[in-house]
Amino acid sequence: MPKRTPLDQLNCSLARALSIVGDGWTMLILRDLFLGATRFGDLAKSLPIARNILSDRLDRLVKAGLVERQEGKRPSYTLTEKGQGLVPALAALIQWGDRWLSDAPPMRITDALGRPIAPVTIEDVDGRQLGPSDVTVLPGPGATPETRAYIRFLRTR
Amino acid sequence: MPKRTPLDQLNCSLARALSIVGDGWTMLILRDLFLGATRFGDLAKSLPIARNILSDRLDRLVKAGLVERQEGKRPSYTLTEKGQGLVPALAALIQWGDRWLSDAPPMRITDALGRPIAPVTIEDVDGRQLGPSDVTVLPGPGATPETRAYIRFLRTR
Repeated sequence: MPKRTPLDQLNCSLARALSIVGDGWTMLILRDLFLGATRFGDLAKSLPIARNILSDRLDRLVKAGLVERQEGKRPSYTLTEKGQGLVPALAALIQWGDRWLSDAPPMRITDALGRPIAPVTIEDVDGRQLGPSDVTVLPGPGATPETRAYIRFLRTR
Repeated sequence: MPKRTPLDQLNCSLARALSIVGDGWTMLILRDLFLGATRFGDLAKSLPIARNILSDRLDRLVKAGLVERQEGKRPSYTLTEKGQGLVPALAALIQWGDRWLSDAPPMRITDALGRPIAPVTIEDVDGRQLGPSDVTVLPGPGATPETRAYIRFLRTR
């Protein structure tokens, strides 16, 4: 493959996703909006980044359709359906950090009863939990010949 | 908060997780190892990045304990349990990219029968699926006073 291709130009949904949310601060902004922050000032209070960077990341999220800005004297920000679609990925990353990088988790995602949510897992269509070795990968409808060849190569190892 | 604090010094499991895997190429390396790649050459073939960057990212993953290197004439790389722990987050990000950023998914994660896995979701401990508005956040055992204050502030909005 050509070297130094930008992430969003790969034929890969993960690379495209990471081209939008791969920046660490972007995921933290999405988390805060998910948790209920709505104002620029809320985010600025929570996140230790310069205001111009926060402003830039928010603008990108609005342009990419993950966040809606309601204009007004003090604009407010909310997650769109597209932005909310990242919540399972966010929760999975938080749980991984709790498990592997933290002696005592700083916060817990809970249900309305205050019970921590279950670990985010991979399941088959019948709801059975799958481990990393129970899953594989097949070319999808958008696979290029290169994608097909690479998947074939990996599956025969 | 002080401005420009490095991600891994926040009292936040998501920030700590992103300080390791927030780089886009790192997640793609983990995906390829998860899919069965084991050699440096496999990864170099799949990922359009310069070899020195690939080498640097792999070294970081080994140091952070997500990847194990088996030395030999041609060293091989495999995910550790810590690295495998990121598979649900990876799958959730791929599915989000498939849904929102792709007309035709390039590849499908499937079970052993070739059936696409179910959408990765958040569930309560009884296995009931939770939407973004069904979950909230509470201080965990490692919460600082600042974490507690911010969570209280968000929960009253």
